[in-house]
Amino acid sequence: MNRAAVLAAPGTITMEDREMPAIGDHDVLIEVLAVGVCGSDVHYFRHGAIGDFVVTAPLVLGHEASGRVIETGTDVERVRVGDRVAIEPGVPCGRCVSCRSGRYNLCPEVRFLATPPIDGAFARYLAMPEDFVHRVPDELSDTAAALVEPFSVGLWANRTAGTTIGSRVLVTGAGPVGLLVATAARLRGAGSIVLTDVAEQRLEVARELGFSTLPAGELAAWDVQPDVLIECSGSPVAIRDGIRSLAPAGTAVLVGMVPEPDVLVPISVIQGREIRVTGTFRYANVYPVAIELAAGPDVDLDRLVSHEYPLAETAAALNAAADDPAILKAIVRPQR
Amino acid sequence: MNRAAVLAAPGTITMEDREMPAIGDHDVLIEVLAVGVCGSDVHYFRHGAIGDFVVTAPLVLGHEASGRVIETGTDVERVRVGDRVAIEPGVPCGRCVSCRSGRYNLCPEVRFLATPPIDGAFARYLAMPEDFVHRVPDELSDTAAALVEPFSVGLWANRTAGTTIGSRVLVTGAGPVGLLVATAARLRGAGSIVLTDVAEQRLEVARELGFSTLPAGELAAWDVQPDVLIECSGSPVAIRDGIRSLAPAGTAVLVGMVPEPDVLVPISVIQGREIRVTGTFRYANVYPVAIELAAGPDVDLDRLVSHEYPLAETAAALNAAADDPAILKAIVRPQR
Amino acid sequence: MNRAAVLAAPGTITMEDREMPAIGDHDVLIEVLAVGVCGSDVHYFRHGAIGDFVVTAPLVLGHEASGRVIETGTDVERVRVGDRVAIEPGVPCGRCVSCRSGRYNLCPEVRFLATPPIDGAFARYLAMPEDFVHRVPDELSDTAAALVEPFSVGLWANRTAGTTIGSRVLVTGAGPVGLLVATAARLRGAGSIVLTDVAEQRLEVARELGFSTLPAGELAAWDVQPDVLIECSGSPVAIRDGIRSLAPAGTAVLVGMVPEPDVLVPISVIQGREIRVTGTFRYANVYPVAIELAAGPDVDLDRLVSHEYPLAETAAALNAAADDPAILKAIVRPQR
Amino acid sequence: MNRAAVLAAPGTITMEDREMPAIGDHDVLIEVLAVGVCGSDVHYFRHGAIGDFVVTAPLVLGHEASGRVIETGTDVERVRVGDRVAIEPGVPCGRCVSCRSGRYNLCPEVRFLATPPIDGAFARYLAMPEDFVHRVPDELSDTAAALVEPFSVGLWANRTAGTTIGSRVLVTGAGPVGLLVATAARLRGAGSIVLTDVAEQRLEVARELGFSTLPAGELAAWDVQPDVLIECSGSPVAIRDGIRSLAPAGTAVLVGMVPEPDVLVPISVIQGREIRVTGTFRYANVYPVAIELAAGPDVDLDRLVSHEYPLAETAAALNAAADDPAILKAIVRPQR
Repeated sequence: MNRAAVLAAPGTITMEDREMPAIGDHDVLIEVLAVGVCGSDVHYFRHGAIGDFVVTAPLVLGHEASGRVIETGTDVERVRVGDRVAIEPGVPCGRCVSCRSGRYNLCPEVRFLATPPIDGAFARYLAMPEDFVHRVPDELSDTAAALVEPFSVGLWANRTAGTTIGSRVLVTGAGPVGLLVATAARLRGAGSIVLTDVAEQRLEVARELGFSTLPAGELAAWDVQPDVLIECSGSPVAIRDGIRSLAPAGTAVLVGMVPEPDVLVPISVIQGREIRVTGTFRYANVYPVAIELAAGPDVDLDRLVSHEYPLAETAAALNAAADDPAILKAIVRPQR
Repeated sequence: MNRAAVLAAPGTITMEDREMPAIGDHDVLIEVLAVGVCGSDVHYFRHGAIGDFVVTAPLVLGHEASGRVIETGTDVERVRVGDRVAIEPGVPCGRCVSCRSGRYNLCPEVRFLATPPIDGAFARYLAMPEDFVHRVPDELSDTAAALVEPFSVGLWANRTAGTTIGSRVLVTGAGPVGLLVATAARLRGAGSIVLTDVAEQRLEVARELGFSTLPAGELAAWDVQPDVLIECSGSPVAIRDGIRSLAPAGTAVLVGMVPEPDVLVPISVIQGREIRVTGTFRYANVYPVAIELAAGPDVDLDRLVSHEYPLAETAAALNAAADDPAILKAIVRPQR
Repeated sequence: MNRAAVLAAPGTITMEDREMPAIGDHDVLIEVLAVGVCGSDVHYFRHGAIGDFVVTAPLVLGHEASGRVIETGTDVERVRVGDRVAIEPGVPCGRCVSCRSGRYNLCPEVRFLATPPIDGAFARYLAMPEDFVHRVPDELSDTAAALVEPFSVGLWANRTAGTTIGSRVLVTGAGPVGLLVATAARLRGAGSIVLTDVAEQRLEVARELGFSTLPAGELAAWDVQPDVLIECSGSPVAIRDGIRSLAPAGTAVLVGMVPEPDVLVPISVIQGREIRVTGTFRYANVYPVAIELAAGPDVDLDRLVSHEYPLAETAAALNAAADDPAILKAIVRPQR
Repeated sequence: MNRAAVLAAPGTITMEDREMPAIGDHDVLIEVLAVGVCGSDVHYFRHGAIGDFVVTAPLVLGHEASGRVIETGTDVERVRVGDRVAIEPGVPCGRCVSCRSGRYNLCPEVRFLATPPIDGAFARYLAMPEDFVHRVPDELSDTAAALVEPFSVGLWANRTAGTTIGSRVLVTGAGPVGLLVATAARLRGAGSIVLTDVAEQRLEVARELGFSTLPAGELAAWDVQPDVLIECSGSPVAIRDGIRSLAPAGTAVLVGMVPEPDVLVPISVIQGREIRVTGTFRYANVYPVAIELAAGPDVDLDRLVSHEYPLAETAAALNAAADDPAILKAIVRPQR
């Protein structure tokens, strides 16, 4: 049986024993090893919805996941039983305009773990198509392999921004995503990177990772005009002030989820300086390079892991991630 | 002496005889032949300011201009006395980062006609550096040569948008700029183009020019999702609804001036569909191609000219452009 | 039974009755209506090979095809029995790096009609995955629908070149592909287009289609430096002279197949002017826009059709295409 | 007086005392501190010409230069007497299409140090426009400041190639330019970089700098298909084999000067894999970031300096650079 932590109602996780997932010819069965708790998991847990995505039936959360292949469909060629893998959680249709043009993250029919009605990874076992599991080398721990997911968000945001050598990058919001965005900016050769946050605790971690920091609201103390803003806080003030701070021809990439569907932007600045403002939605085609980089000497995804929980304590993990400011990244360990 | 229509105070134009403009070694002296009245001229005329640009001393308005070269500085090589020219009204420093990287429209030290404190073209004579006057062929009338300026805005907006064959383009706002934006979109091969406006009168002109139209607010009647929005109305509602209508990976180019410095945008759509939102500020390196296209069979800039005024009636031209809905494009004729 | 024209040996076409093609759940069965004869068909017919692609078993040629859907697999959703369709002849794997990043034309496992060992369209019936047949509107004749294939080559070459308004485009080689490349350049707004060829007969057709022409070797008579070269003749001399003629920062797109695997290019020009030289291989994601454009008022694909043959005369079509200079585009009609 | 090492005839350098250079209002007078000996200097020295550039009058060589400002024109604003500067050796016209569109390296009227008839930097003093001297921080030695020039070549080549995180980069030729190209690739986050050369001595230096190497001709031993080739050897064999090794959609940037004006390229590979081949010509807009990076912890330009010579021994420096395989980068010190 497949033991799973199920969101039965907002705020309520129940442990259930479910049928083992069935696998098709191109699928693999995975023993889940580590799952990061993401802000979206917390939001579904507390509110039962994110925007138009509403949880209307019991749902398994968790989409930042790694595991080990324990069974393969008859046509599987890319992985073998025993392989440890990072799980790319969104499976697109492969046929629509977005998929065929290489932007499969925008596929309208994508099935994404822990986005209703698709169950996620807070469970002992998971079935995935082989094309969306990626073998990881020994250098990558199980938790680091799970965190390839948010790291991919950081890489994608920087690709969208066009961060390159010499770029001056402002990252607003120093939570896990902000830190991984800054890490990706550094890997691309950014000339200066500054992280801002309202929480001094988070800025401390940023400084330990070698980044410059400023308290949110003290941006003016930075004597350069950034040419890239990557907004990771979801704060309307950060969006507005961040865009205002940009140099002519600058780029703002909006990653953080904003509570409201609309937000004020400084249109006169966007026009007068020809600022490019864009959202990012997940990522496409970045897992292989994310794994390669994560296994290298310049990235330490495990540094973000502050707390680990066995599967039975998934609710505690979600509550802690929501309430405890000392939590950087909580991990659920489904085999424990 | 150089007779000029001078904005002495908001709402007040006085005719003055000024010193003839001095020309340097690389400059030309121009007899001004036609000057379009732009929305920004009207705004300065009525309010004495546009955002941070405040008219604090008497100012000559007018920046959509054509003329004839009547004298050349000693080092001038590109034009000769007698040449008719379209005047590119912004003269950048040529040395800053923006200039050296080809985006001279973003030069912070640009001197732009009719932007305080630089006098504009509602005058008999004007001095310009030779590099910012562009010879026009006989096919182009004096008024059409003046309107190369707003046509350049339209070309630039479409270049920024990346409009190409098959693009589905929504143009909100069917004033002169909207019509020229749509014209430029058609030249780039756009597959479908729809113009919207609140004024049926303007939509009629759009239809006469061969474009499809929809009343503002009835966008839903268009059965395609545009992949390009070029917003030319300055209306916050048009911005928001326009962005909401875009297809995944779509682009919104904001051309119309908005009265407020900030505007609400649908952040959830921008993020979920990875929409790119960008402003445009004037143009760079487009005058030569604009003239070539304007002289060709597919563009008729004179079609936009609805009224002409002699220099002495500049105030009447400005008032009419502000108040008379029958005005499409008013032209001042400084030699009359 | 499925009657087919089979290349049994170089120079020998035999008519065979084969099993009807089987269709899978996502496939459609097509009654083939028109098939263009391409230079590659002629080359396989005469030489039994193109470069590394060698015909080692009987092969049906023909890949520029249109047809009518006469049966659909159980999961087919996009087309219905009775639909007329243009056939996109290359079916990629959908899973490799090239496919996932939107460049499915570079898929190493692509199955392409009439490229050994995949049978082509000189047959009464053909099975295709529904995702690679594209419904055509009534405005498009059966022959025009077949010629969407070479038109797609022309569109792709111009996309690769970045042809845009004002571009000065040199097209070397005025056969069907060169003419369609020039047509696509015009649709994208190119400012001037010149076609060259060694055969005056072809240049005549080009002029009838409204293009400027120059005899190959008299390029110097063109008083502009092109910024785009699209080479469609496969002639080493055209490649070298064409690149030499380019303006600084120009682009050369090499479409024509060259008999040898290597060719001389003017390296000093490529370096000193930062010329970009690139090949194109088929196309990706262009069929929908190609059909839309082909059905519009500015494209007349049927104008290229000079000769038609029933299926039984496929060999005659191939021989004529190889030998008769009066042939522009020969079409095989499998239902006749 | 200005003592200078003058190329009087091929192979002959004479020391001359010349007039001090005159400076205009926007110029600075520079005491030259260090000048790198480049392959092009050696080529002019030995052969009196490079391609179409022929030395027809006595010429001062040297264009990789640093110095100290000792006098400023009346309008100079950006630098002050006493500033140490890296000298950007090409001064474009600032007015042509290339200049205005940001590609000033392609300006047809550029005046480039040590390219006939413009005298170079093997002299005690040099006049330059202030816009083409760039202040360097104390972290950068005089020799390193001179080598910002070839480092800029390396940065530009990688920008042209689009090298980014995860790129697999093949650099053919491990001389100073190849090493700086590889350094720039590493700064941009390339995933793997391999340098090849015929000289084991050079590969040793590459390995000391942390790069992987392969003897030229043993490329097949690399188990990845590179997606970027940056060719720095000027060898036709390296060009052809390098392009052949590229992955689909790969890019080849040709930096090394080839003795002949034409070179064979594998056209069938360029077409079948849609390879982009491009030249680079010097650089534009890269000095500021080059200086910033060169002053940082990840670049050590001085590591390339193997030999230094006083001005009077410029001929010896040139001969050594031409003949002595132990020379990596020879520097002339004009004040010694």
